[in-house]
Amino acid sequence: MIIHRQNRAMIILLAATFFIYPLLAFAQRPAASQEVKYSPQLASEIKKVQQAALESDYAYRQLAHLSNNIGPRLSGSPQAQAAVEYVAAELRKLGLEVQLEKCMVPHWVRGEEAGALTEYPSMAPNTTQKIALTALGGSVATPADGLTAEVVVVNNFEELEALGRNRVVGKIVLFNAKFDQRLADNGFEGQAYGQAVIYRGIGASAAARLGAVAALNRSVGGADYRLPHTGALRYADDAPKIPAAAVASEDADLIAHLVSEGKVRMRLLLTPQTLPDAVSYNVVADLKGSEHPEQIVIVSGHLDSWDLGRGAIDDGAGVAIAMQTAQLFKQLHLRPKRTIRVIAWMNEENGLAGGRAYANDHKDEMANHFAAIESDLGAGHPLGFYAQGKPEILTLLQPLTVILQTQGAGVTRLVEETGSDVAPLGAAGVPTFAPIQDARTYFNYHHTAADTLDKVNPKELQENCAVVAALAYALASMTQSLPR
Amino acid sequence: MIIHRQNRAMIILLAATFFIYPLLAFAQRPAASQEVKYSPQLASEIKKVQQAALESDYAYRQLAHLSNNIGPRLSGSPQAQAAVEYVAAELRKLGLEVQLEKCMVPHWVRGEEAGALTEYPSMAPNTTQKIALTALGGSVATPADGLTAEVVVVNNFEELEALGRNRVVGKIVLFNAKFDQRLADNGFEGQAYGQAVIYRGIGASAAARLGAVAALNRSVGGADYRLPHTGALRYADDAPKIPAAAVASEDADLIAHLVSEGKVRMRLLLTPQTLPDAVSYNVVADLKGSEHPEQIVIVSGHLDSWDLGRGAIDDGAGVAIAMQTAQLFKQLHLRPKRTIRVIAWMNEENGLAGGRAYANDHKDEMANHFAAIESDLGAGHPLGFYAQGKPEILTLLQPLTVILQTQGAGVTRLVEETGSDVAPLGAAGVPTFAPIQDARTYFNYHHTAADTLDKVNPKELQENCAVVAALAYALASMTQSLPR
Repeated sequence: MIIHRQNRAMIILLAATFFIYPLLAFAQRPAASQEVKYSPQLASEIKKVQQAALESDYAYRQLAHLSNNIGPRLSGSPQAQAAVEYVAAELRKLGLEVQLEKCMVPHWVRGEEAGALTEYPSMAPNTTQKIALTALGGSVATPADGLTAEVVVVNNFEELEALGRNRVVGKIVLFNAKFDQRLADNGFEGQAYGQAVIYRGIGASAAARLGAVAALNRSVGGADYRLPHTGALRYADDAPKIPAAAVASEDADLIAHLVSEGKVRMRLLLTPQTLPDAVSYNVVADLKGSEHPEQIVIVSGHLDSWDLGRGAIDDGAGVAIAMQTAQLFKQLHLRPKRTIRVIAWMNEENGLAGGRAYANDHKDEMANHFAAIESDLGAGHPLGFYAQGKPEILTLLQPLTVILQTQGAGVTRLVEETGSDVAPLGAAGVPTFAPIQDARTYFNYHHTAADTLDKVNPKELQENCAVVAALAYALASMTQSLPR
Repeated sequence: MIIHRQNRAMIILLAATFFIYPLLAFAQRPAASQEVKYSPQLASEIKKVQQAALESDYAYRQLAHLSNNIGPRLSGSPQAQAAVEYVAAELRKLGLEVQLEKCMVPHWVRGEEAGALTEYPSMAPNTTQKIALTALGGSVATPADGLTAEVVVVNNFEELEALGRNRVVGKIVLFNAKFDQRLADNGFEGQAYGQAVIYRGIGASAAARLGAVAALNRSVGGADYRLPHTGALRYADDAPKIPAAAVASEDADLIAHLVSEGKVRMRLLLTPQTLPDAVSYNVVADLKGSEHPEQIVIVSGHLDSWDLGRGAIDDGAGVAIAMQTAQLFKQLHLRPKRTIRVIAWMNEENGLAGGRAYANDHKDEMANHFAAIESDLGAGHPLGFYAQGKPEILTLLQPLTVILQTQGAGVTRLVEETGSDVAPLGAAGVPTFAPIQDARTYFNYHHTAADTLDKVNPKELQENCAVVAALAYALASMTQSLPR
């Protein structure tokens, strides 16, 4: 999960991202007269795919390798390159036709990062107090020996504006907007994220316009384990670039408490570097279709990750699910009519270069892109799938949902967008899909050091593989076309 | 919560600590014929104390100051000294007679700490992988530029012995014993802790006897947020002192996975220092009894904390509860017959110097120590209280438990030990007590950076204050004596 970098107004842009879609969703049920049936053979094959997925450990083994043996895979890093080579080799092993499709990616490297309160009410003499924080992706550095300034706390942009330039100039601004876990607990994790992430995204420039020397945001996520959550920021063209970091929720609480009592000064050291853009790749691997090889069904996840954890839930799981889909078809000697194209996207997190390069490089082939699936919300128990496109799509997939209901994954929902990397395809008219997952705890770990293999339950990963592989098989094998 | 430093065999010693007591507990119910009654006035006063505690925010404000304004309070630190002065001043404000009673404490200072895997199966070229770890309290340092060695993983001491010297010499040993959260979920948190903490306590020396160059232990605690849990270790006299650190559970899993595939080498840097023992103090504050001022009821918590977090649940809460007890009696103009002695103990975590110094300095006054209460298991919802001593004690306190039952805290249990600091008093025949608390998540945060104010629910802190203050009031006011 990222924030986009387009030059549109950031709020509108954020409202358009993946995580806002449930707000815009509407239920869609086919009328009885529209009943669709699959051939007994297709239904049987979908069930075979589903059952085999529920019994395979291939995806988990791939995820373990990506997470543990390769590790964090930030764009431009040696690990990202190693992951490209590894996934390409594994897909070749399966017999797929593999291409590495080039894209230029940002190459931002985290350096040292440290924060400490150096002055606050009733501070014990000769002490400081540590602030747990992490630089936001894309942040500029502080001076090499850090900066020290007074901290002001605001809960939103209105409070920042109300402070005005006089009370912000020369200060560090802490945006203290809380992630609403109760929303996430009720399945509105996207809204909870959207409400808070805007301060990470554009807070630094808003503070800089009023003369702030650095910006902090309360970490965007649930849980309470002193974990800072990183993520991309976007500097506006009309504001100075100031260093920006996310602080753990506990440290945001601490600062807010102390500021309510008196003057608080903080030392901040961040030494990230933005290196020249690097060459990287989407891994694109085809299992050619038997009847319509020119028609493509994409199954995908993104291969890059943030650097603090090991990219297991975001989004090694998505890549492993896509790899498993092809593996299952090979294992079961099933060859769908249309081409299954496994894609491991590069640079979802801090640029979307991979998704954009693909859409641009293949822009003349959009009519042949039958559908595109991306999984990028972890690997929690799947409840069904999201679809973006015409409502009739859900009608055409109703026989599939009946099969998926046997594993508790029979829910469908039409949404505005299903995933960041496939969004350009969706915008070009390609129907896109994503599993609906239990993501109540996803944002506990999202973009943190704790995004590690143990966060993925092997059984739930199998369930996701079953949903995605069954969906891919149905899309690649169905006799009907999807309306555009 | 600590491990003791005595010269007894460590296993027996650990079996004797606070956390093992529920294993040895037995239910004790008074026979009907033993019915005890308090005077209507005493019962009414206990209820007033209870009710006032449930409505007061004094303890929470004290805890906020200790946690946020003073911060971590490791023995020998400026913050520990500031906390001594602060608590003494606050108790003087209440009108108590305050003494600072000297004790010499260890002065261990954490330095840099870093771990990275430098060689492992399928490692991406030119990369390493970070290991989240923290030095154990009391650990010696690595060489200034760190050490690098192969890692071997064992799940217990038997596996270590089975490896033998040849396969351990020159290596880093990782003890990978897991904290059993299901035990903790079922109220057996002490057993879960006891099963795993022994490797933190004596693992380093066991590894060193076989020639290991460093020891790691899987963090002792629940949760899965990449948090290393510190705590004291104890070097044996017959083994070289080697550096020792706790790794986050995720990193223990990572190492175990990679070691199962091949050779793993790790770089470890720890630069702690053990400075000369420092002068510190127990804060001892008396509210003199109206009839038997020479008879003492201690109400206590420990003022020192580990250095990673802010010492909120371990054990700022215990100190705040004890302070609140005296504050309530003052607020309500209640003066118990016996003296209420509030004690904020020093050095519970890494030496027990405070508890031992008190027991030694007051050894001729044990007969006048009527009872001693310590709260040191956080501030979760209280269920009743533990008692150590003769079973008849519970009979004598039955009218109190009837009152506490109105807040869901009517359970009592006899145990072998109720708290580390009051254990020497218990050994000298003084009946000791502690609240029974909901500690199912206590070890998620215990000894970590996440031991911060937000982990204490203000309402549950009030409930604990009600239990401890009511218990203290009953003990200090009852007409009967407690059997010894």
